[in-house]
Amino acid sequence: MENFKVDNPVKINFGKGVCNELATNIKTFGSRVLLIYGKGSVKKNGIYDKVVAQLKQANKEIFEFSGIKSNPTVADARRAVEFCVTNKIELIVALGGGSVIDTAKAVAVCVEGGLDPWDVFKRKVRPTAGVPIISILTLAATGTEMNMFAVLQNEDTNEKIGFGVPEMYPVESYLDPNFTLSVNKAYTAYGLVDLIAHSLENYFGSGKAPLADKLVFAVVNEAIEIAPRLLEDLDNYDLRARMMWAATMALNGYNNYGRKSGDWAVHALGHCMSMLFDTPHGASLSIMYPAWMKLLSRTVPKRISELGLALFNDDSVDGCIAKLTEFFKSCGSPVTLAEAGITGEQREQLKQLWIDTKAAGYVHEVVDTDYEDLLSWV
Amino acid sequence: MENFKVDNPVKINFGKGVCNELATNIKTFGSRVLLIYGKGSVKKNGIYDKVVAQLKQANKEIFEFSGIKSNPTVADARRAVEFCVTNKIELIVALGGGSVIDTAKAVAVCVEGGLDPWDVFKRKVRPTAGVPIISILTLAATGTEMNMFAVLQNEDTNEKIGFGVPEMYPVESYLDPNFTLSVNKAYTAYGLVDLIAHSLENYFGSGKAPLADKLVFAVVNEAIEIAPRLLEDLDNYDLRARMMWAATMALNGYNNYGRKSGDWAVHALGHCMSMLFDTPHGASLSIMYPAWMKLLSRTVPKRISELGLALFNDDSVDGCIAKLTEFFKSCGSPVTLAEAGITGEQREQLKQLWIDTKAAGYVHEVVDTDYEDLLSWV
Repeated sequence: MENFKVDNPVKINFGKGVCNELATNIKTFGSRVLLIYGKGSVKKNGIYDKVVAQLKQANKEIFEFSGIKSNPTVADARRAVEFCVTNKIELIVALGGGSVIDTAKAVAVCVEGGLDPWDVFKRKVRPTAGVPIISILTLAATGTEMNMFAVLQNEDTNEKIGFGVPEMYPVESYLDPNFTLSVNKAYTAYGLVDLIAHSLENYFGSGKAPLADKLVFAVVNEAIEIAPRLLEDLDNYDLRARMMWAATMALNGYNNYGRKSGDWAVHALGHCMSMLFDTPHGASLSIMYPAWMKLLSRTVPKRISELGLALFNDDSVDGCIAKLTEFFKSCGSPVTLAEAGITGEQREQLKQLWIDTKAAGYVHEVVDTDYEDLLSWV
Repeated sequence: MENFKVDNPVKINFGKGVCNELATNIKTFGSRVLLIYGKGSVKKNGIYDKVVAQLKQANKEIFEFSGIKSNPTVADARRAVEFCVTNKIELIVALGGGSVIDTAKAVAVCVEGGLDPWDVFKRKVRPTAGVPIISILTLAATGTEMNMFAVLQNEDTNEKIGFGVPEMYPVESYLDPNFTLSVNKAYTAYGLVDLIAHSLENYFGSGKAPLADKLVFAVVNEAIEIAPRLLEDLDNYDLRARMMWAATMALNGYNNYGRKSGDWAVHALGHCMSMLFDTPHGASLSIMYPAWMKLLSRTVPKRISELGLALFNDDSVDGCIAKLTEFFKSCGSPVTLAEAGITGEQREQLKQLWIDTKAAGYVHEVVDTDYEDLLSWV
């Protein structure tokens, strides 16, 4: 086991009606609040009204910034930074899924000094202060509610990269499973894929951390157990709650303590797909993960075998990969590029972007692999 | 799943040499430091010297309070409170295992206002402030390094009870597995039993929390996997590290999030044994746990069956209990009262103290059971 620190300051409020405490909990923050959200689904399902009522109850002055799209962009983050600077924002309330919260994190560390988010993500400028963030989660998937990381894409430069500093941790996150009830079947499946991928990218990292491995198995088995029931019963509070907590646990550090690092190649591959074709993040991962495991089977077959035993009671390498593929299919998440509408010339574009991304040094991967084969398998 | 909050502020510094950062990390605290430790084993193995060097490097004035015994007493805590008040202590550095750290926690919340620790533990006075605590762990077992709880015994009243308020969380804990290398075989076994018991007392609590169950299985399986190798190879850093992290994870909250509560009957039983006969804490638990599971098999056989499947690949109730008993025996930890030297009249004393303890309302148990049978099985 490697040395590590546990220093995650995010307070989690989990369960039914937790947002009813929001007004009380945010009293000590400044009065000028940015409420940032997405395309407006929170207005249809009543969540927006609940949050606004809490902000008003706390006597906050609300400044709204909406329209954040999935696969969030640096362009939106830039506009939001300017909006925050102009309006002297003292607290950011991010209401949404990973895209909204990631944008909020990027914005939060750029307000002081009016930094450019892309300069920050490209490690040209190190932010030194952050506006406090409260996250209110409406989609269980990315785990961003309990970590310091964010991912943005830049449509001018064709880059999609992640970044994190401690100033990007939310102060508090509110996880009410009822707020995820209206997530449709496809995006529920993508969320399950995403949390599994986060766990496995930790698992296939470097360094031995046997308890962290067992926690990965716990989280992934939880997702596999939930999936068939939840996808047929989307209004089930308890299954939504289990998925929500599993997604947080998949990427709050515990799956990784004691390792040298994770291996984030599949996420980087997925980001290339989302960058070029706006593929939903989870869908990109279910396509790439099994193929990437085929590559891994050349170098770390034993790890795959142990995983198969823990998840599917099958310690054969091929069995593990086949069963994971079947699981993704059974959720309705794609496992080939063609299913995501990526064919012909687009496959070449993807390969080129992957090569460029690797060359730019943004891929954190343990095993340097030739991706010709990988792309031939998807 | 029940609503819950994650709000654990303890920073963990885990691994080789982490205490070398102590001087830097404590600079911002006041200069008058209480260094509290046990019977002096830390002086023999060189750990004391390392810590004192760090405190001096940070220009702290050191006030020593030593002699804390295992199964720590309120009498020692009272003396330490007085010592802290007299010396205007601004930071407590607890160097030791659960007994020392638990004493430090009790003392920390009694300095302000010169409270009596027993009044606090008996819930007569609610402390409102705590001296900051740094814990430096030398025994992997109790998990106290990452939670807010402490247990003290009162030899005047024959009571041993637990208590916790957020002011009792350590600010930081230093977990260097090398600091546990000199723990002998018996106490290493007791530590393994203790961390397993913590996990299971969560598991047998009330309320359904399937991911928390899986985390319990992960932690207990880790202990079962480590035990035979570590007990034959006490100098093995990596196995010590795995045990140390498993012990922390067994009682830092994650095994319980989403449940209504744990069931702490076995700990309460064990505390009665330790109170009367100074039985090592872990030894009391390996004696009581299998017998208590026999009682539980009348009410929650399915939970035992699921546990057996996860730990021993055996879903029979009797098989699970027998295999857990065998495991404790294989570690060299006692599984009968006689093995701990408790016979004849002492068995009656134990029964009476148990009855008194239950009557006083200090046992947090989910199932109210007749303990006649239980005591006949041990």
